[in-house]
Amino acid sequence: MLSVSQALERILSHVRPLEPRSHPLSQTLGLVLAQEVVAREAHPPFDNSAVDGFAVRSAEVAEGTWLDLVGSIPAGSVPEFELGPGQAAAIMTGAMLCPGADACAMVEDSERQAGRVRFTRRVRPGENVRRQGEHLQPGQVVLRPGHRLRPADLGLAASLGYPELACIPRARVAIVSTGSELVPPGQPLGPGQIRDSNSYALEAQVRACGGEPVRLGPVVDDRDALEQALRQALEQAEVLVTSAGVSVGEHDHVRDLIAKLGGELSFWQIKMRPGKPLAFGLAGSIPMFGLPGNPVSSMVTFELFVRPALEVMMGRFPGESRKQTARLTHEITKKTGLTTFLRCRLESTGTGLLATATGDQGSHLLRSMVEADALAVLPEELERLEAGHEVEVLPLHP
Amino acid sequence: MLSVSQALERILSHVRPLEPRSHPLSQTLGLVLAQEVVAREAHPPFDNSAVDGFAVRSAEVAEGTWLDLVGSIPAGSVPEFELGPGQAAAIMTGAMLCPGADACAMVEDSERQAGRVRFTRRVRPGENVRRQGEHLQPGQVVLRPGHRLRPADLGLAASLGYPELACIPRARVAIVSTGSELVPPGQPLGPGQIRDSNSYALEAQVRACGGEPVRLGPVVDDRDALEQALRQALEQAEVLVTSAGVSVGEHDHVRDLIAKLGGELSFWQIKMRPGKPLAFGLAGSIPMFGLPGNPVSSMVTFELFVRPALEVMMGRFPGESRKQTARLTHEITKKTGLTTFLRCRLESTGTGLLATATGDQGSHLLRSMVEADALAVLPEELERLEAGHEVEVLPLHP
Repeated sequence: MLSVSQALERILSHVRPLEPRSHPLSQTLGLVLAQEVVAREAHPPFDNSAVDGFAVRSAEVAEGTWLDLVGSIPAGSVPEFELGPGQAAAIMTGAMLCPGADACAMVEDSERQAGRVRFTRRVRPGENVRRQGEHLQPGQVVLRPGHRLRPADLGLAASLGYPELACIPRARVAIVSTGSELVPPGQPLGPGQIRDSNSYALEAQVRACGGEPVRLGPVVDDRDALEQALRQALEQAEVLVTSAGVSVGEHDHVRDLIAKLGGELSFWQIKMRPGKPLAFGLAGSIPMFGLPGNPVSSMVTFELFVRPALEVMMGRFPGESRKQTARLTHEITKKTGLTTFLRCRLESTGTGLLATATGDQGSHLLRSMVEADALAVLPEELERLEAGHEVEVLPLHP
Repeated sequence: MLSVSQALERILSHVRPLEPRSHPLSQTLGLVLAQEVVAREAHPPFDNSAVDGFAVRSAEVAEGTWLDLVGSIPAGSVPEFELGPGQAAAIMTGAMLCPGADACAMVEDSERQAGRVRFTRRVRPGENVRRQGEHLQPGQVVLRPGHRLRPADLGLAASLGYPELACIPRARVAIVSTGSELVPPGQPLGPGQIRDSNSYALEAQVRACGGEPVRLGPVVDDRDALEQALRQALEQAEVLVTSAGVSVGEHDHVRDLIAKLGGELSFWQIKMRPGKPLAFGLAGSIPMFGLPGNPVSSMVTFELFVRPALEVMMGRFPGESRKQTARLTHEITKKTGLTTFLRCRLESTGTGLLATATGDQGSHLLRSMVEADALAVLPEELERLEAGHEVEVLPLHP
């Protein structure tokens, strides 16, 4: 049997970031950048006004002095005149400063009358002028590979003329639920049947961590049908996730197929609850995860093993700043020798987080997961944790 | 002049949640539910085994006693035999219990030999059997309107037979940047021109809060062209967001057009920095936001005014649990009479968050925003805040 951290370490030793590719700028939010973003020109590209108002020769502006208006400079235009003595020109925010002017006066400080303007306030030389290159010089690097893109980054890249960026793509994850008893949620239940729910929860989990899920229908417990389904799934994805069929039952073919398709058997009993059995293999470079079939076990093993792998594949650090600590609000007893992942609600208090179990923790009871904010990690070696015990928690909805 | 909270209050008094509609279950992650989700049948729908092993009569299982194997029950099938005295049947996790059996023994506790099985451990009556209805009774409500859907909810809804759910949809937000000086990022810059960056940042901000952006190209500062562009934008969206053209310049047509299309002028000077001017109007039920044109002002006014409106339209509470407090690491001076939104980096310490300004805070300097984790709210009435002063912070990337 492996510990949870041993199993995770083995998985992560087999996954690599996906090959970067070019994405239209609009599609890069949340992706990890795989290139430098560099200012190719000076920014601003020319001296321009920071305000709506008037381009002036600052030395001439004093209370009460009238200046002649000789032009108007809208944004996007090139002024074709030079400001002479006693002259001013209307100018818009962002418009190019005309030669001769050395400052801009605000419209709020002006009085305008028949082609003339005067001001109620002095301006300093350079006031309200954004100088060419004051923000960025040509060649300056503003974003580097490895950075996860946020809205302001996209604005900055656009302003520097990048219509596309090389990024590590979203991982495409094929999801196959297995079990002859499964029918899709839109169909009536026959005797002995239940509905396929794992593939919907897993699909949402993939989406929640930024992957691109490809949900494939439930497959019956028939070795040939399963093999065909898994081979098809491998053709359209960069990761394969299955649920059920990895335990010790007679009809559990998934673990054998993952071994067959992956070249070597990586079937593990992990010292954890819920979610003891887990199959893992590599089909070429495609990681295959055979998760257990109980709804809670499937979701918990996804969070612990698949999510970190997807994060690495998408260029991120696994579990980036997710770990927190909380104090238990009640006593818990558990089996020694197994790390237990307690579904719990979190409550913020002045002195930190409190964790309370979400009722019955049976691994087929999805309601414990529906009500949970986090998984509390109850260590392998402990049998009893008192109220107030501090535990690590993994938030489920960061 | 309005305070920030007065302006937000007026905006929110004009927006309503969007009309719910049915969504395929796979598309509902993060949406707000607009119906009850009810268990229509008992769950589990039949008594079934919690383990891979053997269906038995518990009273007969004792160490060393051999039982005859009379069948095998795969998941999804209906057993067509009844267990008689001295008999057992192989059974898979999730498979229907056969009549006559009252417990399941685990395969790990068994020894099998030529059509017979014996056990190394007793089982209690009912052990490893999941009883029909023990999870949910018919008619039980498991999710209620107003709940924001998470992965486990989708699994639960699937298990209860919901292929679709009525949810409040994502708000479709048309984004129009205005300015004759703007060219898209893929085109070379002419003299006096700069690149359209606001529409990319705003598009990403809409996406980051769960809306569906429709980015429309930059429009020149011509009243007719702008009116046509805004009318077209209104046809394809539930919210309209523009940038620039709301100030006091001669070519600032947006505020007049928002007044014209919205029936009444709501042009506000807001006591804040960055981002003083803001136009707001309603075209029918479509909120129109005229944001300022400086890149930082545009992003900050989006966070403060558009995001809360989108949250309300998508059925959420505006600013849900976003507000935190932090202590400044350095002194700040500001203008009294204006609430200042300082772009800052946050650092977590044992005694709470620390906030540090991200360099030059000019409203045309997107870099201050690129490096920021949050906006620190520096109150209107203060002119000087000492290092260590506790301020409210709005995380930008929750």
